[in-house]
Amino acid sequence: METGWIRWLRERVPPHPNVPLGLGDDAAVVALPGGGQAVVTTDMLMDGIDFRLDEINPKQAGYKALAVNLSDIAAMAAQPVALFVSVALPRQGSRALAESLFDGMIPLVHQFDLALAGGDTNSWDGPLVVNITLLGTVGPHGLLTRSGALPGDRIVVTGRFGGSILGRHLDVHPRVTEALQLAGSYRLNAGIDVSDGLSRDLDHVVSESGCGAVVDLDRVPIHPDAIQWAVQSGGPSTPLDHALGDGEDFELILAVPQEDADRMLADQPLSIPLTDIGEFIAKPGLWHYTPDRSLKPLPRTGYEH
Amino acid sequence: METGWIRWLRERVPPHPNVPLGLGDDAAVVALPGGGQAVVTTDMLMDGIDFRLDEINPKQAGYKALAVNLSDIAAMAAQPVALFVSVALPRQGSRALAESLFDGMIPLVHQFDLALAGGDTNSWDGPLVVNITLLGTVGPHGLLTRSGALPGDRIVVTGRFGGSILGRHLDVHPRVTEALQLAGSYRLNAGIDVSDGLSRDLDHVVSESGCGAVVDLDRVPIHPDAIQWAVQSGGPSTPLDHALGDGEDFELILAVPQEDADRMLADQPLSIPLTDIGEFIAKPGLWHYTPDRSLKPLPRTGYEH
Repeated sequence: METGWIRWLRERVPPHPNVPLGLGDDAAVVALPGGGQAVVTTDMLMDGIDFRLDEINPKQAGYKALAVNLSDIAAMAAQPVALFVSVALPRQGSRALAESLFDGMIPLVHQFDLALAGGDTNSWDGPLVVNITLLGTVGPHGLLTRSGALPGDRIVVTGRFGGSILGRHLDVHPRVTEALQLAGSYRLNAGIDVSDGLSRDLDHVVSESGCGAVVDLDRVPIHPDAIQWAVQSGGPSTPLDHALGDGEDFELILAVPQEDADRMLADQPLSIPLTDIGEFIAKPGLWHYTPDRSLKPLPRTGYEH
Repeated sequence: METGWIRWLRERVPPHPNVPLGLGDDAAVVALPGGGQAVVTTDMLMDGIDFRLDEINPKQAGYKALAVNLSDIAAMAAQPVALFVSVALPRQGSRALAESLFDGMIPLVHQFDLALAGGDTNSWDGPLVVNITLLGTVGPHGLLTRSGALPGDRIVVTGRFGGSILGRHLDVHPRVTEALQLAGSYRLNAGIDVSDGLSRDLDHVVSESGCGAVVDLDRVPIHPDAIQWAVQSGGPSTPLDHALGDGEDFELILAVPQEDADRMLADQPLSIPLTDIGEFIAKPGLWHYTPDRSLKPLPRTGYEH
């Protein structure tokens, strides 16, 4: 949600003791009065905004809609459990469209052993709208939030960044298992998934944590797609610009205490690379090192809500 | 959801042990592996289908969107806890529209002590779409479902029926507190809220319970609106037809063992009337008594999904 709008809502509906984590993180945490905590995320995707059914097929749209919600759950190192899918289907061919959408989701449902627990199926004269609510449970090693980064923590990222528009924005691999695995073996102080862009999502972590971050630009893992896209788009942007700003990488940014980061980087326990790209610092803001190791502001590129 | 579509889904995504109650009831129950059970309902409302913004204001739409979800939670005798609101807002004046929508919800948020825990706010060139997911917890006296009615149970309803189109379809009073209160004092074997229509929703209960029901038409509590609407609409339908078929009454139909029903009817513990309108029977189907007390099929009027 957009910040001004969250502020408006918070003024009218104050925080509730049953929701220790609500508006403003990747997912909310709801304490159930009967016992237990639910981790919940919800996303609405609309044809023409989040995807275009004249460019991709409904199966790809269904896959992506669920994958981005799973990525939000991954960002909390939570365990996804059940999904609820509401759809507004264009009246023409609505049943076939619904089947394709769900055919796109089903591989992820099986991969993460999810329950399809409910939803609401409608048709109308408007374009396709899909709303997914994903319900999860707190992972065995607690919750990862955006707000726990401490000065001195290393900035560790999974995978490589940039150029997702070439296809990875549809072929999303939510880092659910990776987040649970890392949380089980290393101390993680904060986390977020990269949807808006590496620099912008890192900015979300420093804002919520009340600290700053300095990125070592030489160490940012650039995806081959970022290089190809820099060439293809023929614009002034470098592959690094694309890595920092493109977004929809759906990788994780983690705040990791130094010694755990050292161990993690040496272990490389995942099938995708883990890279240390810099440090959280006390000085607020987003920075990068100049060649003489002084700090220069890092522009917050990427998608602004 | 529509029955054929639920069947298609169930074939592809089999029931999951974490979801003892899923597709097909008013709300789903999700067992959280970490402990606890969540009761979850979700509804998508679209401008032009569920309401028309050229006829009602956005505040009324917001109120209704939340009220119908609360009514689903009431149908399970569950306790609502937190809501998630996703919206697709028409780009023109989207902020003002969002504020009005939420202004409509806020009285219910306060009345039921709900947490606004998250959501997704978008704008586009299409009409308004609102999706609400409401998370609750199992009430202290367990869950009410559609499937527990037993032959011999009385059919007890809250309130009066018909003619909701005259205004009560917007001024919905979800029977959350009433359901919890009744569940605390009487044995209730099954329940549903009346959205599609008294006869159609009763039919949902008998289908899910594997029994039948006979309605004493003389005892159906007819709302004054049903009488007025029968006159105003000038059609062949009687006030009783409207009471049986109009829908959007958002009252409860309960299956209550005889002795509890007797006590409940004598107590009249609510500020709205409780009426015994007939009996669940072993013979499948929906019936009413003829003047000589034989059974005649009751037409299933009301909204068909």
